[in-house]
Amino acid sequence: MGSLEEHESDESRGLRLEIIGITGLPEVKPGDDLAELIVGAAERNGIGIMDMDVVVVAHKIVSKAEGRLVPLSSVVPSQFAVNLAQVVGKSPEDVEVILRESRAIVRYRRGILITENRAGIVMANSGVDRSNVQEGYALLLPSDPDASARSLREGIRRLTGRDVAVVISDTMGRPIRNGQVDVAIGISGIAPFRDYRGLRDTFGRELRVTNIAHVDEIASAAELVMGKLRRVPVAIVRGYPYERSDDGSSGLNMPEDQDMFR
Amino acid sequence: MGSLEEHESDESRGLRLEIIGITGLPEVKPGDDLAELIVGAAERNGIGIMDMDVVVVAHKIVSKAEGRLVPLSSVVPSQFAVNLAQVVGKSPEDVEVILRESRAIVRYRRGILITENRAGIVMANSGVDRSNVQEGYALLLPSDPDASARSLREGIRRLTGRDVAVVISDTMGRPIRNGQVDVAIGISGIAPFRDYRGLRDTFGRELRVTNIAHVDEIASAAELVMGKLRRVPVAIVRGYPYERSDDGSSGLNMPEDQDMFR
Repeated sequence: MGSLEEHESDESRGLRLEIIGITGLPEVKPGDDLAELIVGAAERNGIGIMDMDVVVVAHKIVSKAEGRLVPLSSVVPSQFAVNLAQVVGKSPEDVEVILRESRAIVRYRRGILITENRAGIVMANSGVDRSNVQEGYALLLPSDPDASARSLREGIRRLTGRDVAVVISDTMGRPIRNGQVDVAIGISGIAPFRDYRGLRDTFGRELRVTNIAHVDEIASAAELVMGKLRRVPVAIVRGYPYERSDDGSSGLNMPEDQDMFR
Repeated sequence: MGSLEEHESDESRGLRLEIIGITGLPEVKPGDDLAELIVGAAERNGIGIMDMDVVVVAHKIVSKAEGRLVPLSSVVPSQFAVNLAQVVGKSPEDVEVILRESRAIVRYRRGILITENRAGIVMANSGVDRSNVQEGYALLLPSDPDASARSLREGIRRLTGRDVAVVISDTMGRPIRNGQVDVAIGISGIAPFRDYRGLRDTFGRELRVTNIAHVDEIASAAELVMGKLRRVPVAIVRGYPYERSDDGSSGLNMPEDQDMFR
């Protein structure tokens, strides 16, 4: 905590970050070594990876490399999936795949199914995705996004000798505010929060609640260069000073009993 | 819409953004010309403002320039404010100031009062803030943040000849996810969303819901260089291609009857 205080009290220091979109990755296939593809593409982009870079990776290419594609023709829906599919207006196969990834149904209405996935993330369809995926297939989230981030980080270190942080991102709708933003669903090598609680503001007043979910902000910043139609599934955030941590992303999930909107 | 499709289909183009923190602004006082302070500080930082820059401004300095400081000693709480103050564990004066800015109480519990402010933004305390504000005063949001953004944008154009976009940001907690992030509460010169609905993904599948709240992502990106203890209330996002618009920020507020979490 002291280090954050010290760091930010240096007023002369104006931070200047770069958000660099990495182009030229091939369509990712099951079994691909993603670290190798990312390091190779970065090199071809003339971007040498550096220590303390945050490498933000759209979950889709992680899922694809991990073979998390389900052919919908192979899916036999449960009776409940068939029933629920009627209510929400999706196909029984789509709903079955979503339910297998879920541990609770949080909200539903025609066209919308919001669930809590097995890792505790509340989101539409447990993150099961059909866009930017070949026809007839559903793409699941990585089974353990923090583990995926860790493995990517280790792969990048092995290939480049550089110690980066990795953030795996996904696009999510939100209560209260219209539109979607990207957030972090898996992290490695960076603390999930920038925690000011107990520190004092410039007038000496104690900051009681301020705990910035900066990995979500990093994912959002990276989305600005990724877009949805470009093939830019990787961005490097460079120049951002952060605290190292192996905490992972689970602290970002608000427990139901603390969520006044659930 | 066609232009977004065309723009993003240019795969060779790797975007590279800069997020530049502007240091050296003085403590802002009521009546200050904020455009002048920002342009001056940017110049002293060696940052010439450019066309298409997005100038992100923490709402606090906008509110301070607009004199939105309320001396708590002058506040006479209503009976309801006194009653509610007991429940939420705040001072009656604080609650009175919050209620004057609110049109609905959305959630409350000890220590927490979430309201819908007069502009329709749902947030803690209608954005009334005590941190980084002199003791004994409460700082309100700008009375019309889109108008404040417009006026700042015009001021910057008058002083520099450059046509920028302006985003006024605030730090907010969220349902479902722990921690706060910065979002946009007032905008000028930029569309609130990057709307893909009706466009097709790289596999030809129609994107049905994707509508990115990119001004929130821009506010979040800027927060990464602002911090809470640095005196960096302004950041420039440079190199981000966006659509011009005078729509303002009201479309970001999800109406209660469409919000499944309210």
